[in-house]
Order: sequence, then structure tokens, then C-alpha cells
Amino acid sequence: MNYHILTLQNIKNFLLSIPNIKTFFNDENLIIQEIGDGNLNFVFIIKSQKDEQKALILKQAVPYLRCVGEGFPLSRQRMSFEIRALQSYEKLVPSLAPKIYYADEDMSVVVMQFLDKHIIMRKGLINSIYYNNFSEHISTFLANTLFFTSSLHLKSDQKRKLMDKFNSNRELCKLTEDFVFTFAYMQNETNEIDKNLKKEANNLFDQMDFRENILKLKYIFMTKSDALLHGDLHTGSIMINQKETFIIDPEFAFFGPFGFDIGALIANLINSYISHSILNDNIEYQNWILQIIREVYEKFETKFIILWDRQEESALITPNFIDDDTLTKFKKDFLHNMFQESIGFAGCKIARRVFGVAGVEEIRGIKEAQKREEASLKALKVGIKLIKNYENIKDIDELINTIKGVA
Amino acid sequence: MNYHILTLQNIKNFLLSIPNIKTFFNDENLIIQEIGDGNLNFVFIIKSQKDEQKALILKQAVPYLRCVGEGFPLSRQRMSFEIRALQSYEKLVPSLAPKIYYADEDMSVVVMQFLDKHIIMRKGLINSIYYNNFSEHISTFLANTLFFTSSLHLKSDQKRKLMDKFNSNRELCKLTEDFVFTFAYMQNETNEIDKNLKKEANNLFDQMDFRENILKLKYIFMTKSDALLHGDLHTGSIMINQKETFIIDPEFAFFGPFGFDIGALIANLINSYISHSILNDNIEYQNWILQIIREVYEKFETKFIILWDRQEESALITPNFIDDDTLTKFKKDFLHNMFQESIGFAGCKIARRVFGVAGVEEIRGIKEAQKREEASLKALKVGIKLIKNYENIKDIDELINTIKGVA
Repeated sequence: MNYHILTLQNIKNFLLSIPNIKTFFNDENLIIQEIGDGNLNFVFIIKSQKDEQKALILKQAVPYLRCVGEGFPLSRQRMSFEIRALQSYEKLVPSLAPKIYYADEDMSVVVMQFLDKHIIMRKGLINSIYYNNFSEHISTFLANTLFFTSSLHLKSDQKRKLMDKFNSNRELCKLTEDFVFTFAYMQNETNEIDKNLKKEANNLFDQMDFRENILKLKYIFMTKSDALLHGDLHTGSIMINQKETFIIDPEFAFFGPFGFDIGALIANLINSYISHSILNDNIEYQNWILQIIREVYEKFETKFIILWDRQEESALITPNFIDDDTLTKFKKDFLHNMFQESIGFAGCKIARRVFGVAGVEEIRGIKEAQKREEASLKALKVGIKLIKNYENIKDIDELINTIKGVA
Repeated sequence: MNYHILTLQNIKNFLLSIPNIKTFFNDENLIIQEIGDGNLNFVFIIKSQKDEQKALILKQAVPYLRCVGEGFPLSRQRMSFEIRALQSYEKLVPSLAPKIYYADEDMSVVVMQFLDKHIIMRKGLINSIYYNNFSEHISTFLANTLFFTSSLHLKSDQKRKLMDKFNSNRELCKLTEDFVFTFAYMQNETNEIDKNLKKEANNLFDQMDFRENILKLKYIFMTKSDALLHGDLHTGSIMINQKETFIIDPEFAFFGPFGFDIGALIANLINSYISHSILNDNIEYQNWILQIIREVYEKFETKFIILWDRQEESALITPNFIDDDTLTKFKKDFLHNMFQESIGFAGCKIARRVFGVAGVEEIRGIKEAQKREEASLKALKVGIKLIKNYENIKDIDELINTIKGVA
């Protein structure tokens, strides 16, 4: 179908022309609402008038950044990468991603399961809600999506074919290169600096010693194609309740280093921990967050190794090439390197939120100025520490101690 | 044009239908000869009857391996990657690659300058010919092709766009993964083992301790996209005389690690050194080869750094992000890592030639059995040593001493 922008006027006819969706609703009277809070895209909720429990969500990309307008052009091709990533998730982690009812790259449209019984995880964490299945779910998401799209599982040609589908996600990779690895550490007009923190920001911008490691990590981000990444795996890309966890919004998907998604997630959990450590005395909840960080990594590592141990042949491993002892040592070093890169990326993901363009609500949204500053500076301190030491942090205990030592 | 196989019957009409080529010859009487020695492709020499100095060469890929026949299918798309790489060379190193007169990816055809005053460098080295411009030329080739196609020079979107043109060179990457990084170190039907070396081969196939490093290097080969590589830069891919050096046959071109081309070249120079050290007492020539290895690397490094120092902005570097001292340290570590990976890849490229499917003439072609065995075992020893120690070899002196110590 040729691209045209969907509106409240034409969307109903569009939807009813899709057999799969017509069958789903079995009702020509649809309630259609636009949700105004999509940053990048237009988002509609569609419900059956007969049965409002029957609901789907439609997302359409426009050739600009929705929240800014046509003055900020951004290719709508981003939706193609989101669709391709969601289709991968349907195969690799079917219970952890929304069910897709319709997808059309030409129209930059995806229609999917409406997650009305779930909230954005960031909000849940801000409200001190415990999610006791989360580490189990997200570790499966990470292990499955990373392992099954890597050279540790795929054959050589399968890997390169899959890479071909994501290699041209140039614009969004560039956004990450700029906003996660560059602008937030230097004088740049895109930064948003609390006026009381100007001095600290200028101090940071004068410091050079940690930037060598940022360049190293940026270079790894740009050139190491381990696996298909979500690319923006923060707690705002997770819809959650006590039972279920769904990963959404993978428009940044591309082939990059294993550690980047893991690091993004850990960074956002650390931000939540810092926020709680400043805002309230609920030590139990703070400890729960630290425990979740540990569980996420430990469970991920265990699951990843189990998948790898089951794999007899892949692009990397030819049967009988190497004996078990040597392979075990290889895997151990490989995972250790993955852990360290995750910590480095986590450091960038934390530090960039302090003065960079996109703050996180749990820190930049703190109303009381002094506490907001305190939280910002703690985040900065943890971020810089992880960036500086990522190649030396030896295990998850040391990571947890580093977080506790600063925050 | 739709694909059809060119033969002595139809090639003349094909050539004369191309304006550029018609103008070049300015003669409808062409002498056309097929050269039988292409491994992968059909190759024709075309000369003007009026003036035999006017000559071009035409290469066409067929959908199988020419030297084996239709029983060994190999997509003719390999010619598309060769064409794209040659077109890059025309821009980046115009004096070091053949001039292209016509290229057609649909026809899998390229027509280019006929290098009739040059010989394959491998043959020249076997005949103890000195090439005193070689290190100057090849270091420029390496520095320019690697630097200008990397994230150290290109902008982020330019790099990914260029990568898109090479990412689907799946079949030839797979050949390298199999033949350079796997089969030559294990029991495999494709190996060609001199009957007197069966014991040593079996010994090697039982050894495991160096294979962990082979897996590391193979993984780097498969996942690190530093720059556009030639992909098969041995001395058989170089046409040379006293004045000029031309790099040909880049059908293996893809985005891979910087060190792979450098390593391939060093490996082939080391093989030549080993061969001479066994076959004759011309110490002067042996020392010249060692000197060339040193010069190639040192000149490459100097040129690469000069290019990098001139570059103020790229995908990696944003102006004012980092001060000069920190950047200098970053570059030094970066180049050191590139050196070490080059040594590792050189080790694989040497070792795989000993028992693997494609031996090198200067060693496997030695007529006297005992000397051939001696050369093979020395090559194996050097190869394994470089593979085992690549992460510890600190500079070019240590490399040269390692070669001399064994061979």
C-alpha cells in the first residue's frame, strides 16, 4: 500500500480492509482514539464498541519527529526496523513482546496487542512497586534475543542475512552515537543543565581522563556486530505488571555489541536506586533494586551459557574443532568481556542522563531542587566511575559495591 | 544487460557495443584470447590488431568455481563485490589499482587495464627479485583503503551506507571462516597433507591450546567491521614491477577488522622468508624480506597516523570532545591493538597454508621432499607461535625476532 498518513478520518476504513483485523474485532463499530503521548510516532487505540476488552494499538511513523514537528525530519523507515525487531521477538521471546496483528513497512504501520493491564516500568519503579518476576523475564529476553541472533547460534550466512535487514538503521544509530556517547559530556547546545549544576557541568566538561574510555565504548558500539539489539532498552521501553513483562519500541534495533542492551537496562535500574536512596528511607525497596540488578545479570549469564552449551554448531563453532575444557575457558573469558562492556555502556547510559538532552523522570523529575541536584551528582559519580573502571570491574559483587559506595 | 556467459564467439560484439571501449581501441579488429589460469572466473585478453599495445582484460564470473566446474556452485555475485571494491580503489588509491573501463554487475563483468608489464609478486619473490618501491606502495594502499573507509574518517551514515554494499558478500566470508580459521587445524577432508607430514599433522590436530586464540580471531573476523578490506591480500593478489604495484582480485572484499589485510600480507612475506631460508644461502635477500616486513608495518603506521591526525571530525571524533594529549594516548593504544590483531591474523594465514586446501607455491611447491617438509614445519611453528602470542607481542622488533628465532 502506498504511504499515506492515517488520521481519525481514514483509519477506520484502513483497519477494516485488513482481514486479520476485521476478524479480530468482528464489529464494524470501532472506537478509535489518538494517544497524544507518542514522542516519535502517531499512536491510536482501537476498541470494539460491542466489547471494549477487544482492543488493539496502531502505531504509524511520520517522516519527522512527532513531538517536535516537521522541522525535525526523521525518516519513517525507523518503523521498518521496529517491525523487523518485533517480528524477531515473536519468534524468540513470544511471551515477552506484544503480539503483532498487522505490519506494513510501506505504510510504516504496525498494529499490535493493546497492553492495557500493564504500566511503563519506570512509573512502577518510581512508585516503589515490586516486580518479582521481572528478573526472570528480562534475563530470558536478553539471553534469547542476544544468543539466537549472534554468531554463537546462527550460521554464517544466516547471521549476515539478518544483519542486512538492520544495517541501514543509520539515523537512529547516529542519535545514540551523539546523545549517549558524545554531547552529554561536552559543551553542547542540546544539553539541559539545571542552573544550580552549571558549575558541576562545566567541571565535567573540562575533565578529560574518562573520555578515552567513552571513545573506546563508542567505537565498540559503532563497529562490533555481536547480535540484534533492542538499542534503547531502558525501563520506559518495558510494559509490566505482576505477571507479565513486555518489551516495546525497538525502533533503535541494529546489530551491535552484546553489552549495550544489558548495560542500558542496568543503568536504568541504577538510576532508580539512586532516586530512591535520595527520596525516601525505604531501605527494603533500595535493596530490592540492587538485588534485581544482581539477579538480572546472574540469570542472564546462566541462561546464555545454557543456550551456548546446547549449541553444537554455529558460525563460530565447528564440531570437533575444540575440546570441552578449552571451549569452557573460551566461554568464560567471552562472558567476562561481555560483562565488562555492559558495565562500560551502563556508565555512559547513566552519565548521559545527567546533563544530556533526555533526562530520566526519577532524577530530573525530582521536584525539590536540592534533592534533584544531589541525585544528579550521585548519578554522575556512579556513571563516571563505571566508565573509568569498566575494564577492571571483576564481577557483579564489585558492581553492587561500587553503586553502594557512591550512592 | 541480462546475464549471459561471454565466449570467444560473442565477446567481440559485446565489447564493441560499449562506447568507452570502442573509443579505447578505435579498431574493430580485435585479438581476443582466453587465459586459462583464472581459478574462479573466465578471463580474456583483448588487443587491438593495429596496435597490440592497446590491450584490456575482461573478467566474468560464472555461477560456479571455474577451476572445478559446475559441481562447485558459487554465486556470481562475487563479481559485484570485486567491482565495488575496485571502484573504491580508483578513488582511494588510483595509482595502485587497475583502471576500470567498464563494469556491469548484472553481467558480472569488469573490463580493466591489462597489466602486461607486471608479474604476480609471489613469482617475483620466488625468483629473488628485489622490489624497492613495494613497501612504500603497499603501505599507502593499506593506510588509504583502511583509514578512508573506517569510522575514523567517514561520517556515521556514510560508513553504514558503504557497509551496505558489502555486507552480503556472505559466501566468500564463509570460505575464509572455514579455510583460514577452521579446517586447516583439524581432521578435515579438504586438507592436503604431504604423506611424510602425516604424523606432524595429527600432532597438530590433537593440540588444543592455540585454538582458543583461533576462535578469538575468528570471532573478531566475523563481527568487527572496522573498514573495507580486500579480504585476500596475499602476494598472489599483487601485480608488480620495479616501478609500479597494483592490487587486484578483491572479490573477498567486506567490512572486517583492520588487522586482517595487514596480517595476510605479513604472513605471505614470512612464507617467502621461510622458503628462502631453506632453499638458498642468499642471506642478503632473506634480510631484505625481513626489512620489507618491518618497512611495510612502520610505513603503514606512520601514514595511518598522519591521515588520522589531519582528520578533525568523523563518526568517532566530534570537534572539542577530547583534548590532544588524551586523543594521542587513545590513538597509540588503538594502533597497538591493530598491530596485535594483525599478528594474530598473520599467524592464521601462515598456519592454514601448511595442511589446508590451498598451499603456497614457495613452500608446497618445493620439489625436494625433505626441504619441503622442513619449510612446512617451520611455517607451522611460526604460525602457531604468532597465534599463541599475538596479544603479547609488543612491537615489530619482537615480531622480526620471533620469525628469525624459529626460521
